[in-house]
Amino acid sequence: MKKTEPRTLPGFMELLPTDQILFNKIKDIIRETYEIYGFLPLDTPEIELSEVLLAKAGGETEKQIYRFNKGDSDLSLRFDLTVPLAKYVAKNCNDLAFPFRRYQIGKVFRGERPQKGRYREFYQCDIDIIGDENLDVINDAELPAIIYTIFTKINLGKFVICLNNRKILKGLFDYLGLKEKAGEILVVVDKLPKIGRENVIYELEQLEVEKDKIDYILNFVGINGSQDEMISKLEELKIDNETYNQGVSELKEVVKYVRKFGVPDENFKLDLSISRGLDYYTGTVYETFLTEHREIGSVCSGGRYEDLAGLYIDKKMPGVGISIGLTRLFYCIKELNLLSEERKSMADLLIISMNEELDFEIDLANKLREKGAKIEIYLNNKKLKAKMKYADKLEIPFVTVIGENEINSNTIKIKNMKTGEETEVGLDYDKIMEIIK
Amino acid sequence: MKKTEPRTLPGFMELLPTDQILFNKIKDIIRETYEIYGFLPLDTPEIELSEVLLAKAGGETEKQIYRFNKGDSDLSLRFDLTVPLAKYVAKNCNDLAFPFRRYQIGKVFRGERPQKGRYREFYQCDIDIIGDENLDVINDAELPAIIYTIFTKINLGKFVICLNNRKILKGLFDYLGLKEKAGEILVVVDKLPKIGRENVIYELEQLEVEKDKIDYILNFVGINGSQDEMISKLEELKIDNETYNQGVSELKEVVKYVRKFGVPDENFKLDLSISRGLDYYTGTVYETFLTEHREIGSVCSGGRYEDLAGLYIDKKMPGVGISIGLTRLFYCIKELNLLSEERKSMADLLIISMNEELDFEIDLANKLREKGAKIEIYLNNKKLKAKMKYADKLEIPFVTVIGENEINSNTIKIKNMKTGEETEVGLDYDKIMEIIK
Repeated sequence: MKKTEPRTLPGFMELLPTDQILFNKIKDIIRETYEIYGFLPLDTPEIELSEVLLAKAGGETEKQIYRFNKGDSDLSLRFDLTVPLAKYVAKNCNDLAFPFRRYQIGKVFRGERPQKGRYREFYQCDIDIIGDENLDVINDAELPAIIYTIFTKINLGKFVICLNNRKILKGLFDYLGLKEKAGEILVVVDKLPKIGRENVIYELEQLEVEKDKIDYILNFVGINGSQDEMISKLEELKIDNETYNQGVSELKEVVKYVRKFGVPDENFKLDLSISRGLDYYTGTVYETFLTEHREIGSVCSGGRYEDLAGLYIDKKMPGVGISIGLTRLFYCIKELNLLSEERKSMADLLIISMNEELDFEIDLANKLREKGAKIEIYLNNKKLKAKMKYADKLEIPFVTVIGENEINSNTIKIKNMKTGEETEVGLDYDKIMEIIK
Repeated sequence: MKKTEPRTLPGFMELLPTDQILFNKIKDIIRETYEIYGFLPLDTPEIELSEVLLAKAGGETEKQIYRFNKGDSDLSLRFDLTVPLAKYVAKNCNDLAFPFRRYQIGKVFRGERPQKGRYREFYQCDIDIIGDENLDVINDAELPAIIYTIFTKINLGKFVICLNNRKILKGLFDYLGLKEKAGEILVVVDKLPKIGRENVIYELEQLEVEKDKIDYILNFVGINGSQDEMISKLEELKIDNETYNQGVSELKEVVKYVRKFGVPDENFKLDLSISRGLDYYTGTVYETFLTEHREIGSVCSGGRYEDLAGLYIDKKMPGVGISIGLTRLFYCIKELNLLSEERKSMADLLIISMNEELDFEIDLANKLREKGAKIEIYLNNKKLKAKMKYADKLEIPFVTVIGENEINSNTIKIKNMKTGEETEVGLDYDKIMEIIK
């Protein structure tokens, strides 16, 4: 019979077990952290009516959508978790308690041109806090604490959370008489770290921004120093614009509470050039960089928005959220070799039997499983050598071989497969747990 | 502006937070159980090349597929987790250790006609054990132990795992001279509990099975009794057919080890009428029923197959697996009200502040989070009454209100929201953990 080649589409991540274990470990850290901050879980469908999903979209996004008909329905695969959230909140707003704090970890789909490190199906790990009519700016300060906790636990080396407030640049442009072009200028300025100063100047000139204003803007976004120094500088500029001053005051409040929430000064900074391209954001914005690997771009971004669900209902719902693009992050972790701690097996202990019957082995496995250990019994009839090879290939940390002696003496030998060390122990399950955990 | 109605497609499950928490709890029980038995995690793409995914499919399945073009590619959403597993094992067989024990929990898609309790996007929770060339029948006995552990933990009331071996009926049909029609007869017999004896007789007559053979078959599948009684009866029939005898001997072995693996006799039984429609299965087959709710059908099914990946590679890979259709199971749990233990909030404790600054509150939250508690600080500036209403609506189990007194005395009052009881406690975090956990 002709065989079909068993292949996976380009741009779709499919991992071998060792990598999958590591991937899940990171996903679990993110989920656990979202949960200890009290966020509620959400799981929306991956297929939605195109009309609902694309109520706003256009341009690049729309081209990337996986869209198709089934029966009479025009359907699309979700391309982010924000639009489904907006739909969900609009649909269920009478049943939810506000502020509505939800996390969602799931796959989204974008038919981008495949390239290194870009995926067409990828995990987003989002949290958002949605207010009913209003939401205090202090919420904007809690999210960096969550980012800090997650990246500290994942342990990828130094990282820094960059903060800005879109109102500051918006107010500045207004003050400089550039209100009309504010959106376009923001998009250009946002590209500064990517395309460099010269190209930004060129693009701003194309927008017919006057030379002296370009200089002013570039000097402005280049303001640096400690968090407090920068806040002082922003205040000292005495820019007479309400939006600007509101932005500075919000940023000051966020800095104050980010510290209170426990983020050390070295793990966050202000960066006035960051504005997140999307005109969706209206206040605080975040980007997170691995200090030693800034080239991979932001690993966790987000911000404050004023109107989550306006496309669906006539109710003001401001919110603030962040998103971790886990699939791409994992790709970078592997490429840059940022994590070495890996295991190839779920099992803590492999039990190998030399006996006909398995009563002793199964009883041992069940007792340890009850205590939460991950136990595998090798169940195929092979020679001992093949069984040990299996344990080696999977790098199962501990192995015990059960023969007649072990059963008669109620004593087993547990071999640490890394060190080769063997420990003899009676059927004291707590003691065995200590050895294998 | 015209608003888009925020609606979710029929046949797609989207839960409110309380139900989502319960859903995740069940999903976590399944995952944890799969892991304590040492199964490796797997996560394959949801989109595959149609050519790969539909290498075998046909008929009903193919009609239900979500299939579409993107660029030049003919793509499909996966409709189960078995075909992607076959592709994965075929593709990676040199990198995997065998027996390959994997679990996968993920969404699959079938564009069925929507009806009560049928979903177009639903979770399957699968485990499979794949052998390289061979796989001992004792593996077939481990899976019922895993089903037993899961359904005991989920706690849905009495359940029974029904076992059979396809070789028994296959051998019997062969013995009766019905080899040619064996597949069709199996399909009819499998419908016995659904359509009843009369209809089965009618359908077998349509297949031109002789009257006396129909009687024989129906008497045969009606054999009942304890596990051991049934095995004895099957042996005593002295049916001179190798396949039949192999089936009986395998079933006997499976019964023996199912007991050893710890499944009580009352939680499993033999049922000769069960054959699972699919001709994919070749040996042991499983179906699991909630004893009091047999009408919802099997909640966990599976079986032994001889050739997982034959469509892709020229290598014999036998396996055995089970699948839990979690989305449908959850629907039944809600419809039948089988689980009442629910919580509406992830947070164990809500901290409400009456102060300007939040140092005390944040420090308290962070200390308890470090110990694994799920803590939320109410961060919106509202009246105390509104804050308490939030705690009530979310049914957060414990609330503490922090005012000046609490800060000055380093003593807090923790209110149990169910009983109304208040406990005063110093900043002894272990003690606080005891109260709120």
